[in-house]
Amino acid sequence: MNRRAQKATRKQTKAHNRRLVLKTIYDGGRISRADVARATDLTRTTVSDGVAWWIEKGFVEEVGFGPSAGGKPPILLRVVDDSHQVIGIDLASDEFRGAVVNLRGEIRERSTQPLNDRDGKAALALIYTLVSDLIAATDRPILGIGIGTPGLMDPIQGVVRRAVNLDWQDLPLRHLLKNRYGLPVHVANDSQLAALAEYTFGAENNADSLVVIKSDHGVGAGIVLNGQLFHGDSFGAGEIGHVTIVENGQPCRCGNVGCLETVASARAIVQQARTIARDNPGSPLRHFADNPERITIDTVCDALTQSGSVSGGEASADTAALADLVQQAARALGIAAANLVGVLSIKRILIAGSVTCFGSVLLDQVRATMLQRSLALVASETEVEISTMGPDMVILGASGLVLTQELGLFAP
Amino acid sequence: MNRRAQKATRKQTKAHNRRLVLKTIYDGGRISRADVARATDLTRTTVSDGVAWWIEKGFVEEVGFGPSAGGKPPILLRVVDDSHQVIGIDLASDEFRGAVVNLRGEIRERSTQPLNDRDGKAALALIYTLVSDLIAATDRPILGIGIGTPGLMDPIQGVVRRAVNLDWQDLPLRHLLKNRYGLPVHVANDSQLAALAEYTFGAENNADSLVVIKSDHGVGAGIVLNGQLFHGDSFGAGEIGHVTIVENGQPCRCGNVGCLETVASARAIVQQARTIARDNPGSPLRHFADNPERITIDTVCDALTQSGSVSGGEASADTAALADLVQQAARALGIAAANLVGVLSIKRILIAGSVTCFGSVLLDQVRATMLQRSLALVASETEVEISTMGPDMVILGASGLVLTQELGLFAP
Repeated sequence: MNRRAQKATRKQTKAHNRRLVLKTIYDGGRISRADVARATDLTRTTVSDGVAWWIEKGFVEEVGFGPSAGGKPPILLRVVDDSHQVIGIDLASDEFRGAVVNLRGEIRERSTQPLNDRDGKAALALIYTLVSDLIAATDRPILGIGIGTPGLMDPIQGVVRRAVNLDWQDLPLRHLLKNRYGLPVHVANDSQLAALAEYTFGAENNADSLVVIKSDHGVGAGIVLNGQLFHGDSFGAGEIGHVTIVENGQPCRCGNVGCLETVASARAIVQQARTIARDNPGSPLRHFADNPERITIDTVCDALTQSGSVSGGEASADTAALADLVQQAARALGIAAANLVGVLSIKRILIAGSVTCFGSVLLDQVRATMLQRSLALVASETEVEISTMGPDMVILGASGLVLTQELGLFAP
Repeated sequence: MNRRAQKATRKQTKAHNRRLVLKTIYDGGRISRADVARATDLTRTTVSDGVAWWIEKGFVEEVGFGPSAGGKPPILLRVVDDSHQVIGIDLASDEFRGAVVNLRGEIRERSTQPLNDRDGKAALALIYTLVSDLIAATDRPILGIGIGTPGLMDPIQGVVRRAVNLDWQDLPLRHLLKNRYGLPVHVANDSQLAALAEYTFGAENNADSLVVIKSDHGVGAGIVLNGQLFHGDSFGAGEIGHVTIVENGQPCRCGNVGCLETVASARAIVQQARTIARDNPGSPLRHFADNPERITIDTVCDALTQSGSVSGGEASADTAALADLVQQAARALGIAAANLVGVLSIKRILIAGSVTCFGSVLLDQVRATMLQRSLALVASETEVEISTMGPDMVILGASGLVLTQELGLFAP
């Protein structure tokens, strides 16, 4: 290496080592400088310098003494979880939702802005309102803004290439927000952030690679490979919602027919449930016959649970049509899972989003279909589970993205 | 970093720098030490030490002087392409094929061993015969043996987990060959090596990521991401041949029905063509009616070319059934391509294997199906082409694997 390169490398190494110190304290809970040195293979001097840096910035504090190993008892360090805050935003549901989140992914404040069918500039203005509200609600220094958006993203440039429902095309979201608020901004697709949420704050923080299939308004997959979001050449990795699943199926808003979204999205289930409510006087949704637009995915879920079919009971003929919707959606998700196994040979797939209210009825069908439709030797090593993270998943993934980019907390 | 770690790193850095020097000379054709230093950002001393090392081992030679830039004209270096040899083996066709290959992927000797339906230990014995023949045919030091095998591989351990046609299960191929020949052995799936062949010796050496869909006896995809083979958690990445494509389709040897292989493999086309030859007296294959087992994929290809339907002419009704086989295969490959785009968002897909004899008739249908069945904004950025590498593809990929692992020539 030449001198210039060496110098650059030394500077990078110093920043890298500093992040490693913080990550080690973060992961360790309460830990001494000596144990940080042991865990990282860094010299004690490097660790002490790093600790001093983070203490000065308020991220780390000393919290008393640990047990003595014979000599002087060691001072223990911990991360001050509420020393800084992050703003996480989810643009992928019926309302724009955001939260002020601390360093542990704990939500400190929330705000929502009902979308009411707004799109284009009006929808953008709603983000400004939401972010301004949340910034006003912070009471600690803000590390940055993380945004999960539906549609096709260029995460490098922070540009929304296309979000059909919001009528956005080539919207430079990062640039606009960065200029407006003077804060670091990180943007990614909502399904990708759902996967990152599992990897950062979820139960999946030990898995190197995982896929989250998220079904709400649309359907998409988020792919984490070796601890990092995988975006693909055209940044459309995981855009499985518009892969054809049903031959000559229903038209999709993307222009094709029979896309996964037309069968497996919460929206598709709700739309078909509304038709059933209107047309079938014996349906468990019959009391919505006059205002089917009030039916949501939770309504469908409740109706099936009460009729016993979700919990495994015998479905009446009237309930069967509704239960079939769920089976069709689950089967379509199983086909998608089989494709994912065939291409990625992934061991861990999680189902997330509002369709998870159907629980094991959905999950069992997804698993069975996946096994039936891919190489058994590979698929049998793939676990499919329902995500336990709930509706804040994208907000938490967006926060995790900021913490990874700005502090290196969840770097592989 | 502590002292021990520093020392380890220095040793690694030295080996890494040395490989970088060789790679730079290899890529440069004829290049001076000064230009290697400029290209690598290494010091002149490091470059000179590296060059001396490779000259002593015979990999590099001085080849006269370059143009003077004012002072003393610089000595030019080049890789001695035939200084060392690699043995590349392809176990994925009807016969076991191998070659002695030089550092540029040029084949110096060949050997084949007809399989004649052998499997299990008999098939393994055939590899020994093939490798021994090839070792005897080398006339330079051998860097290692690279093997492309059908089935599911553990490339880390070099174990064939399952190869149905060869009736192998958990066969420690690398271990067996390494012990027998005392040479480095690298093993991978044949489709993966097809992709590596494109990346190393093919026209695709500038693409960071690409997928090769190979259809011969079976169908599989090889996936190169960021210049490296992607294997997946269960090492089954790209095992798309057993993903269901046809609802209630033909039974597959994997136990499921309607797998991609049952429609899109050269074998499936040939099997169906044999039925047509037997049952359809007007078919272009009618002269095989009495011995349909002589029909190969090339026979089918020739029959369609002569009848004009492959070159775009009007097909007679008798030819139509045969042409339909190709369209069905192409459509199934297009569905697979759509799935690959949905999951990986890849910009470059190549079709390889013996089905490529159908040329643009196949290719056009694959492209059209892919576009119809995935998100247009992503798929429109994906180029699908027919590989130009021909039947030595797996042998070359296996050789490229050895050169990458042993010398770092094609490391990203």
